[in-house]
Amino acid sequence: MTERVVLAYSGGLDTSVAIPYLAEKMDAEVIAVLVDVGQGGEDMEVVRKRALACGAVESEVIDAREEFAADFCLPAIRANALYMDRYPLVSALSRPLIVKHLVQAAHKHSGTVVSHGCTGKGNDQVRFEVGIGALAPHLKVVAPARDFAWTRDKAIAYAESKNLPIDQSKKSPYSIDQNIFGRAVETGFLEDIWNAPIEDIYSYTSNPAEPRDADEVVITFEQGRPVAIDGETVTPFQAIAELNRRAGAQGVGRLDMVEDRLVGIKSREVYEAPGAIALITAHQELENVTVERDLARFKKSVDQRWGELVYDGLWFSPLKSSLEAFIDESQKHVTGEIRMTLHGGRAVVTGRRSEASLYDFSLATYDEGDLFDQSLAKGFVDLWGLPSRLASARNTRLS
Amino acid sequence: MTERVVLAYSGGLDTSVAIPYLAEKMDAEVIAVLVDVGQGGEDMEVVRKRALACGAVESEVIDAREEFAADFCLPAIRANALYMDRYPLVSALSRPLIVKHLVQAAHKHSGTVVSHGCTGKGNDQVRFEVGIGALAPHLKVVAPARDFAWTRDKAIAYAESKNLPIDQSKKSPYSIDQNIFGRAVETGFLEDIWNAPIEDIYSYTSNPAEPRDADEVVITFEQGRPVAIDGETVTPFQAIAELNRRAGAQGVGRLDMVEDRLVGIKSREVYEAPGAIALITAHQELENVTVERDLARFKKSVDQRWGELVYDGLWFSPLKSSLEAFIDESQKHVTGEIRMTLHGGRAVVTGRRSEASLYDFSLATYDEGDLFDQSLAKGFVDLWGLPSRLASARNTRLS
Amino acid sequence: MTERVVLAYSGGLDTSVAIPYLAEKMDAEVIAVLVDVGQGGEDMEVVRKRALACGAVESEVIDAREEFAADFCLPAIRANALYMDRYPLVSALSRPLIVKHLVQAAHKHSGTVVSHGCTGKGNDQVRFEVGIGALAPHLKVVAPARDFAWTRDKAIAYAESKNLPIDQSKKSPYSIDQNIFGRAVETGFLEDIWNAPIEDIYSYTSNPAEPRDADEVVITFEQGRPVAIDGETVTPFQAIAELNRRAGAQGVGRLDMVEDRLVGIKSREVYEAPGAIALITAHQELENVTVERDLARFKKSVDQRWGELVYDGLWFSPLKSSLEAFIDESQKHVTGEIRMTLHGGRAVVTGRRSEASLYDFSLATYDEGDLFDQSLAKGFVDLWGLPSRLASARNTRLS
Amino acid sequence: MTERVVLAYSGGLDTSVAIPYLAEKMDAEVIAVLVDVGQGGEDMEVVRKRALACGAVESEVIDAREEFAADFCLPAIRANALYMDRYPLVSALSRPLIVKHLVQAAHKHSGTVVSHGCTGKGNDQVRFEVGIGALAPHLKVVAPARDFAWTRDKAIAYAESKNLPIDQSKKSPYSIDQNIFGRAVETGFLEDIWNAPIEDIYSYTSNPAEPRDADEVVITFEQGRPVAIDGETVTPFQAIAELNRRAGAQGVGRLDMVEDRLVGIKSREVYEAPGAIALITAHQELENVTVERDLARFKKSVDQRWGELVYDGLWFSPLKSSLEAFIDESQKHVTGEIRMTLHGGRAVVTGRRSEASLYDFSLATYDEGDLFDQSLAKGFVDLWGLPSRLASARNTRLS
Repeated sequence: MTERVVLAYSGGLDTSVAIPYLAEKMDAEVIAVLVDVGQGGEDMEVVRKRALACGAVESEVIDAREEFAADFCLPAIRANALYMDRYPLVSALSRPLIVKHLVQAAHKHSGTVVSHGCTGKGNDQVRFEVGIGALAPHLKVVAPARDFAWTRDKAIAYAESKNLPIDQSKKSPYSIDQNIFGRAVETGFLEDIWNAPIEDIYSYTSNPAEPRDADEVVITFEQGRPVAIDGETVTPFQAIAELNRRAGAQGVGRLDMVEDRLVGIKSREVYEAPGAIALITAHQELENVTVERDLARFKKSVDQRWGELVYDGLWFSPLKSSLEAFIDESQKHVTGEIRMTLHGGRAVVTGRRSEASLYDFSLATYDEGDLFDQSLAKGFVDLWGLPSRLASARNTRLS
Repeated sequence: MTERVVLAYSGGLDTSVAIPYLAEKMDAEVIAVLVDVGQGGEDMEVVRKRALACGAVESEVIDAREEFAADFCLPAIRANALYMDRYPLVSALSRPLIVKHLVQAAHKHSGTVVSHGCTGKGNDQVRFEVGIGALAPHLKVVAPARDFAWTRDKAIAYAESKNLPIDQSKKSPYSIDQNIFGRAVETGFLEDIWNAPIEDIYSYTSNPAEPRDADEVVITFEQGRPVAIDGETVTPFQAIAELNRRAGAQGVGRLDMVEDRLVGIKSREVYEAPGAIALITAHQELENVTVERDLARFKKSVDQRWGELVYDGLWFSPLKSSLEAFIDESQKHVTGEIRMTLHGGRAVVTGRRSEASLYDFSLATYDEGDLFDQSLAKGFVDLWGLPSRLASARNTRLS
Repeated sequence: MTERVVLAYSGGLDTSVAIPYLAEKMDAEVIAVLVDVGQGGEDMEVVRKRALACGAVESEVIDAREEFAADFCLPAIRANALYMDRYPLVSALSRPLIVKHLVQAAHKHSGTVVSHGCTGKGNDQVRFEVGIGALAPHLKVVAPARDFAWTRDKAIAYAESKNLPIDQSKKSPYSIDQNIFGRAVETGFLEDIWNAPIEDIYSYTSNPAEPRDADEVVITFEQGRPVAIDGETVTPFQAIAELNRRAGAQGVGRLDMVEDRLVGIKSREVYEAPGAIALITAHQELENVTVERDLARFKKSVDQRWGELVYDGLWFSPLKSSLEAFIDESQKHVTGEIRMTLHGGRAVVTGRRSEASLYDFSLATYDEGDLFDQSLAKGFVDLWGLPSRLASARNTRLS
Repeated sequence: MTERVVLAYSGGLDTSVAIPYLAEKMDAEVIAVLVDVGQGGEDMEVVRKRALACGAVESEVIDAREEFAADFCLPAIRANALYMDRYPLVSALSRPLIVKHLVQAAHKHSGTVVSHGCTGKGNDQVRFEVGIGALAPHLKVVAPARDFAWTRDKAIAYAESKNLPIDQSKKSPYSIDQNIFGRAVETGFLEDIWNAPIEDIYSYTSNPAEPRDADEVVITFEQGRPVAIDGETVTPFQAIAELNRRAGAQGVGRLDMVEDRLVGIKSREVYEAPGAIALITAHQELENVTVERDLARFKKSVDQRWGELVYDGLWFSPLKSSLEAFIDESQKHVTGEIRMTLHGGRAVVTGRRSEASLYDFSLATYDEGDLFDQSLAKGFVDLWGLPSRLASARNTRLS
């Protein structure tokens, strides 16, 4: 029987070439699946038809934008997920969603193989294949770029020999992955980590150094999820899109870092994620107001582990489920409003307001109305310091 | 025998009033100790004389600026110490240093009591008293503002009745603590957490929103310590001071947050720490380049705990010593240069360069010269995902 | 109006004396509440009447045995809760339950004050008062032993002067707290930590050194909860009671340790907890079989924090709720059977069986039927070690 | 040029067969290296000569017993290293030591390849190869059992065809790895995890169920290292050997567990480690007496990570160095004596004595001499519970 290969199709050179190549090499029928995660760019219908023109027997577009925002980006916001304290996991979040839809497509189209365009030195191969192994362990996986050692030049030559409808004259010098939660850019000159990024590589953000008027925004959260912007109810996708637009216009969310990849190497990455950074910043401060101290302190280790797991391709792991149960419970009262100024590359919280606030003016104030009983402090301080005091006395005695 | 009280003297109303008050109340001689931690402001000699004018039997100024920078601020930089991911522990760092000098002064002047001006609802009382308990458990501690329930009005009335040389007409509406590592501001209207700070409260930083030219700086680190700026060798104090000046001129390092105090309440705090934020940001990125992944991941929990301990007044604790042994070892190769752009309130790393770099161009590049063996990835991915795969299969089987 | 004091009554000297003392001192009516947490000993009705004889206006017994086992002991088993790797939190678990019933009694009897018999240097005062503060912050708390500086001698003299029906001739030299989950013993000679416990202090356990036949038991768990013993369905209380009997008969569960109290001192404690130790040991091994590796590793830090929180009196804290959400999720598949040998002070797992097992014979075996693809290992090992290899090469290069 | 292969030689079937096989297959000279880590069994000289008889060009025995105990076992004791709370890392500790000596031998004998006998589904291949990659990345590694897919039957047939001097009639049904720190046993019938171990598989320990007299031992530690037993100074190797003998005679240290291997599968393992378990148990209790509470609590996470790293083959990793710096500092005062009863499979601490003790009788006692100021407790309890109280009040208000 003919194998049927379900291919995660992007419309670019690599996955376009993969269609006739896999068909030929594996004597297979190729089904192209294009998942819309808000990446923008070319018209989806144009891309869909290109797959057919390249030889796919089926080609379909799946609009997963709201699902992506609700089920993948919002958990990241609730986890304040910043890998290495910086990167909001843009690509790491979309891969498990794409996996889910590839598996569904394989089921629908009787696919026996799943294919993706990742190389063998990045994180995304892990995210694809660990995800597929978890959801559909019976499916084989083939990654032409890695498994058949394709290079760009080989791909171009093959495309020309097959007369594939791919216009390489428009070829960008950048390797890009983007979705509604952000955009990653790699390119040759950034591989020298002393080189600074140039303005040309950015697309989601304006230059923060250019003078312009500040923007002020009020974000309403319910249980850790953004539900309104300036009082207007928004879907998760709308929340991110609107803040991409407004924070992006102010140059918020540019990141430039050296990053630890799962496969054991360090790489240099440049990202833009205006909406993600604005939302996580606001969410963190609302947690400061509404989450009790011990819970807040422990949640940092839960958040860190959640981000590492997702970065490391373990979205569909038992640990992630348990971490999310913790996070869900912690968010019960993360409800309220955060006012932020977006300006000059900064998203700065200037006000917070919450029915669930644990900030108590009458305990905090130094002015009239102070209800804090200062006489309690002496006993607290004394017992708080007792272990240190005993240890110091011991150390002195022995030294 | 007459008690001798060693007072941590700031020159302000509260500690000035404390001099005659303690002398009278405790029938004691008061020795004023003024520790210079780079707080600036009034001339130290003027302040020193004011203590004498208020009735102190001795008054001395201790220049601890380099010691503070080297022994208290640098460890914080190496620990990337940001309490609640934001606050670089400005006041929390100076208290143990002041404690150390108070204890030395008590020894020198035969003091039997130590006194400070803290209230009973803040963190600083804990830092003072736990520190004193650790270093000199035989010393009694008295905190007039807390123990005798002083209020501002009482203090002013007492100052007037005693004709103390304190000019209340110049009284600022702000309650301020500052040192070379930063500045904390509290004031009545900020106790409503919906109110934004106003420009008037800042002193270490210019308005980031005002247009000006960017500044570029190269910071050289050795083993996690800043040792040169733009190629000029600097002491720790000079490093922080120079970056306070340059990053402060660009509006870097303003912080506005709701914070969990050790005594169990939340408070609203506004800080400025331009040098601290610039240095920690640079240090973090140099760690990204030179620290191995597993070490980097675990160090986050060590750094977090270090920050909590110091915030919580446990500078002289056994856990802190052990955390620092970890950090010292981790910093052995955190050596190299970071180039940063300071502009518009942002301190942005644009380049990194290190002999000790773990970034390996030949492994990271997608261009010619790639030495990464992609054929290894398949086996890695498969075993990496095996536990998740087995768990998913089990879950499917049972559901 | 007369105050009404709800007293946590144990029937012993201290709380018996507290009845007339509080009535007199506070001009109050005292309501004695005796919570049955499986402590055994005297008949509850006899104790109840003693409170009335001492002057209580009301005296009630609350049978909370099943509630205690189900809602307080089972969560501890699911968290493998062993404070300092040893102590299964016996007293720490009962205090929040007693608090809950005191608060209910205060509501029912219009109580305005709650009272307990704890001293000021132990953990239990914290557990009582933090619990009451969380559940009913409007209630005042009074602890006569601590707040009025009672000593044993004062109490006896007072009892005699009031002719209270307390027989001090039967007085044990031991200070004991016990419930279904275990028993804590303190006594003077154990305060020298070089002294060994003597056989006389034990009550739940036989001498493990005496020869006797081994006992074998099979414990069935569902989602981390023991539900059957040797195939017989049991309630949580029955599970613990039955294992107290059988493991206790074999000398299992004696503990002798130096322990860190919350109030900052170290104390020497001797415990017996045969059922608790047997159940936790079995539960841990069933987790080994059914919980995925990364989840198991992280759960250790969750379990540790859960135990510290409960020991530290923070049962009713937001962090505990979130940790339990994590634990609940982690226990979904902790279902199966553990066979144990109870003998000579040891509870040793000898077999495990589970539909939800992640142990896969065909992957683990070295005999026929091996399905593990060893060729994958090479790639895994190579990338797994890559970060260490790069760091070692760097270190060598620089040294 | 002829390759020279340095082989980790055990004297058993697999590595004996590997000698002629590698010589033939790789056209190489094989140098056999036998590292004595206290595994006992056959005379080392006999084993050394067997390698020559099998065709090795060189064969050497390295007595690494004291080095192994001092540099590999003692750090494990100081880390209380028990993987999954049970397993004292027996094999995981010896592998990096063997690696070190293989690398030295390769240097001495101009070896270009290193070889070991591990399969592709265990942990030891990882420990060997990651270690070699760290110490000598230029060396190639070959693992015949894994890389050439050898099976036992193939090996026997090959041995017979080559007439190798290996007596298979004495073949044990057990697969065993042992060293001074313990012994691991695998065998077919234990792969059914419901089966109990039989007495026959044990060698380091007597049956704990047999009646015998108890043994009492006093272990003296200095800075976390055992230095004397019953007052007699011992080397690290002697300490472990002596306790293997005495604790082993009492049946202490048998372990039976399902374990998470690094390669992603669960396996069933039976271990004996009498000396290791006795020493770690004693060390833990001495820490309870001499280590301050916050340090003790954090050290648990450091210890856990140390054990995971070593289990996972990352002995030569930067994180391990930093964890050990922490541990070294934590052990400064872990000095004193622990008295233990060894009996019936149990190693039970009955006394502790230390100049560096933090246990303070005058604070802990409830009898005369009590110096603890109970009046401090009220303030402590109140502020300790304040965050929970505020959160509960908020939750009540909103529900």
